[in-house]
Amino acid sequence: MSKKKIDLKKAIRKPFKSLRKVGKAPGTITYMGHREGGENKITVTDYSDDFCVTKDFDDVKEAFVFRDTDTVSWINVQGLSNEVEIEKLGEYYKINPLVLEDLVNTNQRPKIDEYDEYVFCVLKMLYLDDDCKLITEHVAVILCEHTVLFFQEVEDDVFNGVRDRLNNKYGRIRTRNADYLFFALIDAIIDQYFVVLENITNQIEILEEEVYNNPEPEVVNRIQRLRKEVLHVRKNIYPVKEITNRLTKTDHRLIHNETKVFLSDVHDHSIQIHETLEMLREMSMSLMEMYMSNVSNKMNEVMKVLTIMSSIFIPLTFIAGVYGMNFQYMPELQERNAYFVVLGVMLVVFILMVIYFKRKKWL
Amino acid sequence: MSKKKIDLKKAIRKPFKSLRKVGKAPGTITYMGHREGGENKITVTDYSDDFCVTKDFDDVKEAFVFRDTDTVSWINVQGLSNEVEIEKLGEYYKINPLVLEDLVNTNQRPKIDEYDEYVFCVLKMLYLDDDCKLITEHVAVILCEHTVLFFQEVEDDVFNGVRDRLNNKYGRIRTRNADYLFFALIDAIIDQYFVVLENITNQIEILEEEVYNNPEPEVVNRIQRLRKEVLHVRKNIYPVKEITNRLTKTDHRLIHNETKVFLSDVHDHSIQIHETLEMLREMSMSLMEMYMSNVSNKMNEVMKVLTIMSSIFIPLTFIAGVYGMNFQYMPELQERNAYFVVLGVMLVVFILMVIYFKRKKWL
Amino acid sequence: MSKKKIDLKKAIRKPFKSLRKVGKAPGTITYMGHREGGENKITVTDYSDDFCVTKDFDDVKEAFVFRDTDTVSWINVQGLSNEVEIEKLGEYYKINPLVLEDLVNTNQRPKIDEYDEYVFCVLKMLYLDDDCKLITEHVAVILCEHTVLFFQEVEDDVFNGVRDRLNNKYGRIRTRNADYLFFALIDAIIDQYFVVLENITNQIEILEEEVYNNPEPEVVNRIQRLRKEVLHVRKNIYPVKEITNRLTKTDHRLIHNETKVFLSDVHDHSIQIHETLEMLREMSMSLMEMYMSNVSNKMNEVMKVLTIMSSIFIPLTFIAGVYGMNFQYMPELQERNAYFVVLGVMLVVFILMVIYFKRKKWL
Amino acid sequence: MSKKKIDLKKAIRKPFKSLRKVGKAPGTITYMGHREGGENKITVTDYSDDFCVTKDFDDVKEAFVFRDTDTVSWINVQGLSNEVEIEKLGEYYKINPLVLEDLVNTNQRPKIDEYDEYVFCVLKMLYLDDDCKLITEHVAVILCEHTVLFFQEVEDDVFNGVRDRLNNKYGRIRTRNADYLFFALIDAIIDQYFVVLENITNQIEILEEEVYNNPEPEVVNRIQRLRKEVLHVRKNIYPVKEITNRLTKTDHRLIHNETKVFLSDVHDHSIQIHETLEMLREMSMSLMEMYMSNVSNKMNEVMKVLTIMSSIFIPLTFIAGVYGMNFQYMPELQERNAYFVVLGVMLVVFILMVIYFKRKKWL
Amino acid sequence: MSKKKIDLKKAIRKPFKSLRKVGKAPGTITYMGHREGGENKITVTDYSDDFCVTKDFDDVKEAFVFRDTDTVSWINVQGLSNEVEIEKLGEYYKINPLVLEDLVNTNQRPKIDEYDEYVFCVLKMLYLDDDCKLITEHVAVILCEHTVLFFQEVEDDVFNGVRDRLNNKYGRIRTRNADYLFFALIDAIIDQYFVVLENITNQIEILEEEVYNNPEPEVVNRIQRLRKEVLHVRKNIYPVKEITNRLTKTDHRLIHNETKVFLSDVHDHSIQIHETLEMLREMSMSLMEMYMSNVSNKMNEVMKVLTIMSSIFIPLTFIAGVYGMNFQYMPELQERNAYFVVLGVMLVVFILMVIYFKRKKWL
Repeated sequence: MSKKKIDLKKAIRKPFKSLRKVGKAPGTITYMGHREGGENKITVTDYSDDFCVTKDFDDVKEAFVFRDTDTVSWINVQGLSNEVEIEKLGEYYKINPLVLEDLVNTNQRPKIDEYDEYVFCVLKMLYLDDDCKLITEHVAVILCEHTVLFFQEVEDDVFNGVRDRLNNKYGRIRTRNADYLFFALIDAIIDQYFVVLENITNQIEILEEEVYNNPEPEVVNRIQRLRKEVLHVRKNIYPVKEITNRLTKTDHRLIHNETKVFLSDVHDHSIQIHETLEMLREMSMSLMEMYMSNVSNKMNEVMKVLTIMSSIFIPLTFIAGVYGMNFQYMPELQERNAYFVVLGVMLVVFILMVIYFKRKKWL
Repeated sequence: MSKKKIDLKKAIRKPFKSLRKVGKAPGTITYMGHREGGENKITVTDYSDDFCVTKDFDDVKEAFVFRDTDTVSWINVQGLSNEVEIEKLGEYYKINPLVLEDLVNTNQRPKIDEYDEYVFCVLKMLYLDDDCKLITEHVAVILCEHTVLFFQEVEDDVFNGVRDRLNNKYGRIRTRNADYLFFALIDAIIDQYFVVLENITNQIEILEEEVYNNPEPEVVNRIQRLRKEVLHVRKNIYPVKEITNRLTKTDHRLIHNETKVFLSDVHDHSIQIHETLEMLREMSMSLMEMYMSNVSNKMNEVMKVLTIMSSIFIPLTFIAGVYGMNFQYMPELQERNAYFVVLGVMLVVFILMVIYFKRKKWL
Repeated sequence: MSKKKIDLKKAIRKPFKSLRKVGKAPGTITYMGHREGGENKITVTDYSDDFCVTKDFDDVKEAFVFRDTDTVSWINVQGLSNEVEIEKLGEYYKINPLVLEDLVNTNQRPKIDEYDEYVFCVLKMLYLDDDCKLITEHVAVILCEHTVLFFQEVEDDVFNGVRDRLNNKYGRIRTRNADYLFFALIDAIIDQYFVVLENITNQIEILEEEVYNNPEPEVVNRIQRLRKEVLHVRKNIYPVKEITNRLTKTDHRLIHNETKVFLSDVHDHSIQIHETLEMLREMSMSLMEMYMSNVSNKMNEVMKVLTIMSSIFIPLTFIAGVYGMNFQYMPELQERNAYFVVLGVMLVVFILMVIYFKRKKWL
Repeated sequence: MSKKKIDLKKAIRKPFKSLRKVGKAPGTITYMGHREGGENKITVTDYSDDFCVTKDFDDVKEAFVFRDTDTVSWINVQGLSNEVEIEKLGEYYKINPLVLEDLVNTNQRPKIDEYDEYVFCVLKMLYLDDDCKLITEHVAVILCEHTVLFFQEVEDDVFNGVRDRLNNKYGRIRTRNADYLFFALIDAIIDQYFVVLENITNQIEILEEEVYNNPEPEVVNRIQRLRKEVLHVRKNIYPVKEITNRLTKTDHRLIHNETKVFLSDVHDHSIQIHETLEMLREMSMSLMEMYMSNVSNKMNEVMKVLTIMSSIFIPLTFIAGVYGMNFQYMPELQERNAYFVVLGVMLVVFILMVIYFKRKKWL
Repeated sequence: MSKKKIDLKKAIRKPFKSLRKVGKAPGTITYMGHREGGENKITVTDYSDDFCVTKDFDDVKEAFVFRDTDTVSWINVQGLSNEVEIEKLGEYYKINPLVLEDLVNTNQRPKIDEYDEYVFCVLKMLYLDDDCKLITEHVAVILCEHTVLFFQEVEDDVFNGVRDRLNNKYGRIRTRNADYLFFALIDAIIDQYFVVLENITNQIEILEEEVYNNPEPEVVNRIQRLRKEVLHVRKNIYPVKEITNRLTKTDHRLIHNETKVFLSDVHDHSIQIHETLEMLREMSMSLMEMYMSNVSNKMNEVMKVLTIMSSIFIPLTFIAGVYGMNFQYMPELQERNAYFVVLGVMLVVFILMVIYFKRKKWL
């Protein structure tokens, strides 16, 4: 008991890594994620009607030149642990320190904030890695004049489709302004949610199959893990509806009306995601119910076997017991056919019991 | 175990057919349904006060002539897999490419969008086929000037009543404009929802009967399937309330006030459908509860049989066992009537036990 | 299996009596109820400050004279199956065909519609017949100038109180206009809901008693039937709150301000009904829970009896078995008092077991 | 069976005492409570800055003199069964008959109505009597110019604190107008709700203790009774939030702004009561769950005892049975030490079984 | 039984310590917490751009000098039981007596009130003590001109971070006005909520582990305690969302726009806390479900052991019983190999039973 208590304390006392910021002043830029995988990288995709160039930089200052060009620039900052570099970039683009704080705070819930000179949006990028494991990555997008700043934790992302369209010189995206790129990135992230939800749906269907055919205790654990995954996904995806709703209604000068038409489509998707999540939740709950009913059925079957065996043989054993008694005067024992008569009686009892259980449909 | 894991992966990796669009640019017209049954067909019903003609076309261009006539035309496009034809039609009627995208996207949730020149509505057509199986079909309606464009996946539909009224020269529908046809089609689809819900209600009642009389484990599976059907229907029907609500409040120039009177009726229906769905959901949940209580009752009955048999014969067997012992000095064994006395004692014990269980109402 | 399937189909294919209207044009007046009890009857109660006359008519035309008098007329149409007569009446009073359609549509959900010349209200009249069975009747009221048109399915109603007040020459109702009668009829219907809810509350209390004292499986069925009744009542009563809410806020010229004071009272009642329904729902759900807990308790008791009997006699039987073995050299068997010693040991084991179970409080 | 049915009918047919009003005209003043304890009494507390007098009257007319004085009068009418007296008082103070009807209607749900000349408020006074039984009393307060009319069913009330403050010549209440008294009475009633809720919380804690230590079936009944009490309290207390909300926003001329500051405090309390009620409801539901889990645990324990006893002695009894067989040629029987060898084998089996169950942690 | 009843009464009658105020006049300043730990202390931190001094006082009057300086003062009153001192402070700062009443009322629910001259905010400070026990402390903050009055019950608090920033002469906080301090204190309290919620999350995860590996009845109790903790935390934290929402929208002259930017961040946090609480609630509920399913599984396993043992040995014992009968004429008994044949038959039965149970996967 006491040992456990200590474990509990340790578990709770463990430095709240995700809460490192508690007690710091607001506006302090502190990365909350895993510090190890820290290698930062800046990738800039600069494009216009007639060209599209992608370059990698190590130092954020080399990317400053793109601020004042007329072409659209997508400045992609990979790795949020190098707070110094991010602060430099923020200063150059005149981003509020509070925004930078939210940007690197991986616990920040998805949200959108409109400032005079830029639009700031925090999202969670959810996707499946090659082993179909769910990856949740904290990302942030800032839409400035002619520029989209995009911040992500690791290298993987879901933007291959966007890159292809940028490289394709006939793509509509090349002819549009930064707000269209901003919208295309958000759209790509939300599209990926559908893949994640489809994956969960598939898992639920597989579990349903197993619960029905082979309800082993270990399944409970998997159901619970699935439920937690649904909770996790919900927590990260739910606020997106507010974001898209806000975007469709915004009148920020950086977001043009032609782009808003596409946004209403994205909003549609986030409503659909909402509804799917509700459905998944309900399905995951009925999984557990189904499991419990199957366990009850199994128990019932076990009980029936026990009852049938006991009910048939206990009376027969009693009869045998009676004629095993050692009384000196037991007239039946002397009869020549008594043994066979008793065997016959036992057979009759046996048959009657079987008929009884057949009637009850237990056999 | 490891085999199962591989299955899981495969199941998840299977090309997400329904998600083929992920990563494409918005405005790309991609049909999401089964591509096989693809034969497209255009059917145009052109009518006015004094005539009503129905013609079939293979090529969408042949239907273009109806755009500029004063008669009302119902252009019915069957088969959504031929994106090229649909794009041509869309261009001719000046439909936004984003609208066409939603139109063929069978995952699109029901919605209504009002544009300056047309009203666009996506719905799910739910109906029972000849085997009472539920069919869900993605349909889209566009109300233009004098024309209703209707898009559906397969040939079957629920519009026989509308066609009859069009062919009947005294029907009110002939004297009205395209908005009345638009409303009549939506009304026909919603009317069919009642049939679907009535069917589910019937199934619930049949299952209730079975759960009560014969609660076999297989019933659980059917209850779960029913619940999923309710979830599926809900997902497809729920948004209709918003649509009809929007329509009753619209002031789009193509929808006249005389027609709106009828729309408020349709809106009434969709509220009723909403409430029925909630009721069905509650009924399907109490089905499971009822099943579980019946399983418990059965288990109780099994336990009672076991307990009665054991409680009666185990003590009797013990008595027989006592007089089966081989002690040399057991005075009772020599008594002449001891055997019969013991049999009598056993009978008394038996009777007492039976009385006890009668008192407990287990017999 | 296959037989069952066919039954299922038949059950579903059975002509959806309640859905006869699917596919018809809006504005078609089709009665949805049982066509048999069809005898129609028109009863007119014409009253003013100083007189009150009640007459029965067979033909609706005879009632037309009352339209243009200054006295208040309550035209009561019993039987909704004679659509022709109702149509005639509707035409004479200039009622919209869509209104007449809702009026005879017994599936119509309660609602109120205000038109320029009249107010139309659909309600469900719920009352208990002489056997305390719940009767649900579809009724409709139309408030016109000086006239209230009331439509009901069968003869029984809940308006004896209103009739008494009309016949009493000192009653306030005689001095008021038609809107007061309109309100008095709705009030009488809503008052009856309290009786229905009180009845359900009583049934719940009786069931609670039974669940506690005598939880037989058959009770589950009655609980489920009660729940369905609650669902049915809810479906029919819930919309009334909206209706009364709308009425308290209306500024229709036919409804005078003095009458509205009384309406706010009716609205109060419908809120109270709402809350009672929620309470009944919660109580009916906890009934099932209580039943399940009682079944579990019973099972526990059964198990205890089994365990006590087995645990006491199985070890004793084993001891007897040991001394029933036929080994040639078993020294105890020759001892003169061995038999009594063994009997004593058995007694001690028996007593120890009983003490053990007393300690566990199973006895 | 048939006997029960008759009981059911009787139970339902029993004159709906609480529904005596059904069918009567609105504005009929009918007391709905128990008519027996009917002794009416009028108590008037008249006070001003410099004096405070309390007098009892039997006849309501004697209290009329206080209407036209400038001092604040608290006219307390105890006993609602004497409708005639109340009507007289109502007429003198020009109260609407509908208000008087609600005033004596003990089924009236808490509400507040503002009229030009007075404010009318119905509340439920909940308090614990000396045996900690919950008493629910219907009360009504009318705030007029310089006067508060207070109506209650029986003598007991929760206003001792208010009376003390009135009698204390330094109390703020003496310097204020009637609206402050009105507010003080409502505040005293709401304060008492906290005592009631604290009592329920205590009962839940006691039940939790019992469920955990000693989950007897009788506890279920008490849990259910508690739940019903929570439902009852909720029904009577919930509407109070609306009332206090309305009062904080009112601009009735009788309620001065200085008093409103205190009202916002009362509103705060009613929100807190709301939240506590929700918490109590959740706690009462988890009580039942806890009980069920405890019953399951007990069952598990019973099963383990049965399984251990059976599993140990059934194999041993079998071994004894084998050597109790009467075959002529059974070589072991002749061996001199066979008996002891068999006893040893039995001991080994016994020990193995015990070890097995220890491993499974059933012992 | 009767003894328990008395206990119940006592428990309920125990002076409702937390309700001492019932019946007192509004505006009476009564501390509701534990009176023992009463030592009051005043700590004033006075700071400006270029200095920061902290002093302790015993008498509240010594702190009065700070009111009229231009520097920002944080007057921290520790210990709420000395109502006299608090009243003095309140009078000097012209705080409404009602505010002071709420300030010391530890049952007051979190809220914010804006007055002309100050902003008053009640909060609950939740934090973990050194043993990871949850401490709930009632605190109140008043923002006046240049001054923040902070009231807390005991010495411990969560403001070390704020103090560090105040003592650091480069901290932004030193350059700002009192509203920034006000916001920093609220922010520090809300930040601590994350630690509390993280702790609960950890406890849930530990319990999940235990429920899965070792579902002992004692775990139920811990789950229930956890649930109650979640309820408790929810009750105290929920209203904070309203408070931060109000603050972001306020236009009180004491709260400057530069500070509001930070408030929107705090509001974000309180939304996130809301969502986390909902998730915790769901997780704590599924814990119980998981426990129940595990108990069922254990029961199933117990039943299987019993059934296997009984089903194998009961038939074998019966066979032995048959040949233990004492009939004179039982031909088998004379056969030389009969004994071994019977042993062989028993072995076969044994093997068949084992195969049967292997097939059923019970072994």
